[in-house]
Amino acid sequence: MKTIKVKAPATIANLVCGFDVLGLCTEVPFDIMEVRLRDDREVIIKSADGYPLPTDPALNTAGAPLLEMIKKLDKDIGFDVIIQKNIKPGSGIGSSAASAAGAVVAANFLLNQPFTKDELVRLAMFGEKVASGVKHADNVAPCIYGGITLVRSIFPLDIIPITAPPLYVSIVHPQIEVRTADARQILRKEVLLKNAVKQWGNIAGLVAGLMKEDYGLISRSLEDVIIEPVRSVLIPGFVDVKKKCLQVGALGGGISGSGPSIFMLSADESTATLVAQEMEDVYQQLGIPAHIYKSNINCQGVTLFDETNDNHAVL
Amino acid sequence: MKTIKVKAPATIANLVCGFDVLGLCTEVPFDIMEVRLRDDREVIIKSADGYPLPTDPALNTAGAPLLEMIKKLDKDIGFDVIIQKNIKPGSGIGSSAASAAGAVVAANFLLNQPFTKDELVRLAMFGEKVASGVKHADNVAPCIYGGITLVRSIFPLDIIPITAPPLYVSIVHPQIEVRTADARQILRKEVLLKNAVKQWGNIAGLVAGLMKEDYGLISRSLEDVIIEPVRSVLIPGFVDVKKKCLQVGALGGGISGSGPSIFMLSADESTATLVAQEMEDVYQQLGIPAHIYKSNINCQGVTLFDETNDNHAVL
Repeated sequence: MKTIKVKAPATIANLVCGFDVLGLCTEVPFDIMEVRLRDDREVIIKSADGYPLPTDPALNTAGAPLLEMIKKLDKDIGFDVIIQKNIKPGSGIGSSAASAAGAVVAANFLLNQPFTKDELVRLAMFGEKVASGVKHADNVAPCIYGGITLVRSIFPLDIIPITAPPLYVSIVHPQIEVRTADARQILRKEVLLKNAVKQWGNIAGLVAGLMKEDYGLISRSLEDVIIEPVRSVLIPGFVDVKKKCLQVGALGGGISGSGPSIFMLSADESTATLVAQEMEDVYQQLGIPAHIYKSNINCQGVTLFDETNDNHAVL
Repeated sequence: MKTIKVKAPATIANLVCGFDVLGLCTEVPFDIMEVRLRDDREVIIKSADGYPLPTDPALNTAGAPLLEMIKKLDKDIGFDVIIQKNIKPGSGIGSSAASAAGAVVAANFLLNQPFTKDELVRLAMFGEKVASGVKHADNVAPCIYGGITLVRSIFPLDIIPITAPPLYVSIVHPQIEVRTADARQILRKEVLLKNAVKQWGNIAGLVAGLMKEDYGLISRSLEDVIIEPVRSVLIPGFVDVKKKCLQVGALGGGISGSGPSIFMLSADESTATLVAQEMEDVYQQLGIPAHIYKSNINCQGVTLFDETNDNHAVL
């Protein structure tokens, strides 16, 4: 039967001032997913490396979207999925989105692309629902579209790709646990209008700055007066990381998704390297193990895994 | 002594989803302001047509910014200002901003432009403080810059011009009074986070739509889930105007500033004419006198008054 292998990349949701609507796709880290077509309606999930994934497909972030896809097609097809999970669940860099998006993009390839990108996003959201209880698209949209995306609306789905100048991403994932559900629960249901105004001034500035390729404006707009003050208390070292990264030239950054990962954007690669070093230093001093990633923006989203080149990149 | 005559145009603040941060400059209506240099530190305000303007310059929206300018320059200069007030105070289309911006731009011309646009906006905000008690820039920024502007931040001032495709504006000013201070007071100090998220998704979509010249996206993004539901109750006919204007092809629109004027954007002039007709019909049926304006976007802001051409345009 037909088989395909894809890279399903990490994504950074929220982008500081765009809570629940903005997201960015990175080059690394990425999951590797092998998907094989079956001729029954089964979805079989396996881990490539013994990582304890839920094997009931309805409870698996890759499985649930595939079950939904089979239901939609109403044909005798199914999928074997072997996942090498490099993006750890609970990292805040779109682990569940990578599995969900990788699965549906790979399946779509195998079936000769019957689904549009928006339809794939809709299917992948079933994986997000398994992971966090809520259908959201701020990770699956950039994972499928690549680049930076705005999810203006989920119902009806309205995804807008936002062009951007070259940007480099530094990410630190301190090895502590912050559950998405908990991170959501500590947010207040009401916010001050004056803070909301500041936030929508900033997101408007960020979108304009990205499209105008104005690094100064991007930097000034990377400010979150609503979510960060509440959630950052869950992340030891956050204030220190942010301060030190800005000091060495980062444009700005903040909590990736619901954390605990922290990301920073830089205008050039050498600054991104300095920033990554600062991140490492902070957590070394705190005695908290941390994974560090440095990446370009990934403009393709989920792509075919290239055995020759990509094996080098596997972390 | 040197004299200059300028057109100070109307502006539309908020642009539906950009409360307190977005604004747009129109061609009509406009005030005509004649400003003459004096060699003392006096500011003398006169009405060209008997309209009852406050003559104490400190209490006049054109006077206060000029007094501030004189203080800043610390020289023996002053200004005579004769205002033909075509934009009526309380209309919600930037009447106070036009006087303030017109005054400082004219004075800056007379003094050989010692001030940058941002400095002129800062001065003009003293006029807004006289009018509404609050320094805000969402009208004076587009009045001085022209086009569509984003005021990302007031302190420090950060004005971002937003490019746009051709757009036509239809405005109706029903002759009822809504005071800016009252319109502000009925707003709640807190808003639901989920509504704020919707709003910043929309403003991000609007900015992207304008810059991409995507009329569909502009139209979908022109939605206000926070301010309009509260303020529109102060404007009789609002729901009807909006519904009918959308039916004849308007992209979208809403309350101009704090009202009572309502504006609608269209992609072409013939639609803007149909929209203006619908506006007129609604208020005719309600028996409320209303002024109707139809305009391009004014990309220049305050400009020199051209006696040959502009006299035709005076309403």
